[in-house]
Amino acid sequence: MAKRLKAVQKWLQQKDIPCAFISSTENVFYLTQFYTNPHERIMGVFVFQEEEPFFILPKMEQTQAKEAGWPYEIIGYEDHEDAWELAGSFLKKRSLKIDCVAVEKDHLSFSRAERLKEISGAGDFANVDSLLNELRMIKEEQEIEILRQAAKLADAGVEIGVSYLREGVTEMEVVAAIEYELKRKGIRSMSFSTMVLFGKKSGQPHGNPGLEVLAKGDLVLFDLGVVLDGYCSDITRTFAFGSVSEEQKEIYDTVLKAQKAALKASKPGTVLGDLDATARKVIDDAGYGEYFPHRLGHGLGINVHEYPSLAQNNKLMLKEGMVYTIEPGIYIPSIGGVRIEDDVLITKNAHETLTGYPKELQIIK
Amino acid sequence: MAKRLKAVQKWLQQKDIPCAFISSTENVFYLTQFYTNPHERIMGVFVFQEEEPFFILPKMEQTQAKEAGWPYEIIGYEDHEDAWELAGSFLKKRSLKIDCVAVEKDHLSFSRAERLKEISGAGDFANVDSLLNELRMIKEEQEIEILRQAAKLADAGVEIGVSYLREGVTEMEVVAAIEYELKRKGIRSMSFSTMVLFGKKSGQPHGNPGLEVLAKGDLVLFDLGVVLDGYCSDITRTFAFGSVSEEQKEIYDTVLKAQKAALKASKPGTVLGDLDATARKVIDDAGYGEYFPHRLGHGLGINVHEYPSLAQNNKLMLKEGMVYTIEPGIYIPSIGGVRIEDDVLITKNAHETLTGYPKELQIIK
Repeated sequence: MAKRLKAVQKWLQQKDIPCAFISSTENVFYLTQFYTNPHERIMGVFVFQEEEPFFILPKMEQTQAKEAGWPYEIIGYEDHEDAWELAGSFLKKRSLKIDCVAVEKDHLSFSRAERLKEISGAGDFANVDSLLNELRMIKEEQEIEILRQAAKLADAGVEIGVSYLREGVTEMEVVAAIEYELKRKGIRSMSFSTMVLFGKKSGQPHGNPGLEVLAKGDLVLFDLGVVLDGYCSDITRTFAFGSVSEEQKEIYDTVLKAQKAALKASKPGTVLGDLDATARKVIDDAGYGEYFPHRLGHGLGINVHEYPSLAQNNKLMLKEGMVYTIEPGIYIPSIGGVRIEDDVLITKNAHETLTGYPKELQIIK
Repeated sequence: MAKRLKAVQKWLQQKDIPCAFISSTENVFYLTQFYTNPHERIMGVFVFQEEEPFFILPKMEQTQAKEAGWPYEIIGYEDHEDAWELAGSFLKKRSLKIDCVAVEKDHLSFSRAERLKEISGAGDFANVDSLLNELRMIKEEQEIEILRQAAKLADAGVEIGVSYLREGVTEMEVVAAIEYELKRKGIRSMSFSTMVLFGKKSGQPHGNPGLEVLAKGDLVLFDLGVVLDGYCSDITRTFAFGSVSEEQKEIYDTVLKAQKAALKASKPGTVLGDLDATARKVIDDAGYGEYFPHRLGHGLGINVHEYPSLAQNNKLMLKEGMVYTIEPGIYIPSIGGVRIEDDVLITKNAHETLTGYPKELQIIK
């Protein structure tokens, strides 16, 4: 049985929990290699201490799940069938006493928990989230190889974006061009809505691109990533267009210094929260502390935001195989914003920066 | 106070529930006009029987929420703060006895329900999903106007796709071209991953486009939609490329006949499940019943799949203001698939078809 399913079985044995039900798109992919978004339809894997797992999903996805390599039982249901009842009848066949089911408490909805209780007879739920978060947090070699390639495609996205910058172009035209070029290469989806922000709009940490046009003196912020074989990349670069003011340059230099400081501290044994503190101190010392309103970064993998979080209060220690972003930013509404973001892998003794697009300030003419 | 928030307040009064917490991206948008995906961060609106509601969300989204028109209190939190504790302290200020909170049981996760219980002191949860589903199911005039425009942009997407069909083009090249042209017009996101499938791949109801190339004799299936001002469209058209075989034509004609039969039955008073039955009978009678594995369609609005479902067993009656898709299909692995999908609005006496791209079989040369 695949290593990951075995880890879940072993955990069930250790905790003496008879059964786990795992149903988020991401964790189902992690355990089955089958990636699909079933929208409001139910999809999930039942895992047991000893018995073989089974997979319940919409009938029309059945063939693809098999093709993805799931070797165990599959229950395919049609839209007019009650998937929960069907799952219940399969659970009964196993003749297990199910007093507790381990579920993804951060994902499973209240309604589904109620149905699961009903069909399993379980009086209690355990939380399998931390197990899966921990397993997924340490990337395996084949995952790292995909993340490396995904990061290179993010670099390419920035390069494409820069090549489309000219006076009068709109934010959305540049977004469209980046995604067009990447999709032509076979990229099926971006890891989130591509962000291209000009001028003052770059000062909104979560701004949305629109029909604003590029003018000389604008800062230009790109934040984008691709999904490659189920894994995400995420890069941010900021440029000056035409010219750069003293203050824009000062902000840029401060963010870059903060970013490099956090990168330098990225090695096994560093406490995650200290990475945030390291970058934040640089920005605070330069007098821009109030303009850095978000955490330093986030874990990266099947989800574009996953464990671990790089918030100030995270006491977890960095370990080999972790992959996360470092993305400090300064956002001043009257001027615009600068954010610089890399994807980072913790190696045995230090780190490898997966994204490689240059970071020194470029004035695009 | 806005009509929709008032409807929630009135419902709380009728049910004698002191408080509702609404936190899905879609329902928050419906109630606040502010659309954002906060990823794993908490965002939600607390609504009370009499008191003014308040909105909790990440601090960096605060300005945009105000700009979107939210006139009541906003609690913005930073990443290192405990958003739940903060919400709890605001709840306490209201000095209400909260014995029960109405939540979106289909959305709220088990973990969040636990935190909400802790900070509110509620011993019980009520379900506010059906209220919100029912409110959202009947579209208001301004929503219908947006859905009309979104459907026209979906038509445009098909037209763009057709214009890029030529021997040897890949599925992803056509996907990229469609999204490029739409995004240049200012469309920020598609309502789901654009689907362009050639040949036998069109026979997978949920296939993913890839690097397959177009050849004469292939069926070509497009399924796509755009998000416009928070509302989704969804269209499917199927074409023959170069030539058409007798069997491809028979499948096409059968699907089109089924689709038109269900359209014809679309008027106030028809039972939703009967629409599915009407289309399914046409396909069954032609001998293709086993190759139509999904429901006839789904409600359409802020979500690309929302209430009502057009499954066989839905006993709900059609009412003026409902918007949904009609999308029968036949999928034969050795030949390919045909699906034809329109977006439909129920009017006072009949229906209006929002998507308008022609449906008669076209052989693209």
